[in-house]
Amino acid sequence: MRPIGIVRSSYSDRTQIPKGPGAKHDAEGVLDISPEFETGLQDIEGFSHLYVLWVFHQAQGFDLLATPPTDDRPHGVFSTRSPQRPNPIGLTVVRLIRREGSRLLVHGLDMLDGTPILDIKPYLSNVPEAELKRGWMAEAEARRRG
Amino acid sequence: MRPIGIVRSSYSDRTQIPKGPGAKHDAEGVLDISPEFETGLQDIEGFSHLYVLWVFHQAQGFDLLATPPTDDRPHGVFSTRSPQRPNPIGLTVVRLIRREGSRLLVHGLDMLDGTPILDIKPYLSNVPEAELKRGWMAEAEARRRG
Repeated sequence: MRPIGIVRSSYSDRTQIPKGPGAKHDAEGVLDISPEFETGLQDIEGFSHLYVLWVFHQAQGFDLLATPPTDDRPHGVFSTRSPQRPNPIGLTVVRLIRREGSRLLVHGLDMLDGTPILDIKPYLSNVPEAELKRGWMAEAEARRRG
Repeated sequence: MRPIGIVRSSYSDRTQIPKGPGAKHDAEGVLDISPEFETGLQDIEGFSHLYVLWVFHQAQGFDLLATPPTDDRPHGVFSTRSPQRPNPIGLTVVRLIRREGSRLLVHGLDMLDGTPILDIKPYLSNVPEAELKRGWMAEAEARRRG
């Protein structure tokens, strides 16, 4: 595994990234892809949203239980987005604003400036809202409202 | 990066996996997570859908342009789901049927039997249909219908 590019964002510190219930990821920034991979971006302008796979490069080790900012109790790490996971890969859906050569301007970043990018894929399908269950996250939100 | 488990599916050969326009991924199978990581699955039963990150373990090398089965012309690899990508990571959304200890029975597999699993994350959010553009894929579908 080697980076195909780097995230350019305004987040220099993890505490700056909105977390928790209702967190909005409105940050704009750049997926700065290495020029050697620019050909791989052909036709990407046609997609409104992209998956970005990236590395939690500041994470050290992992914990099988994590207490997320959205709850006051621990959950299995694979039920959370905790950075402290066995393979520290992050996944974010961003909206593509425009492409400038090998640079993709995007909306919805939640990564630190300097984050290594592993892969980009087109975001295609939706799970219908009526079929979607959000487990402990929905319960934690209900407790918070309640 | 090291596998956290292995996919158990009925697909022993890539040609068996449905591809192309209208392909339905109705395969059921098992995400067989290593018992050492079972604690990390706590509370995963509450989620209807999961992201699975896995390795295209049979892919060799990469091409920056790919001609997908859904089209007759090449596109940048990052605009496709081609296995021949710089970092051969696959991403699939599956529906969780049930958990049996460290085994997750799921619906919607499109991976070969024996595929190494890197990570599992809860599937949470949707991009509203009205905001979603599917680039060359929509165009290829239109041409095919046309």
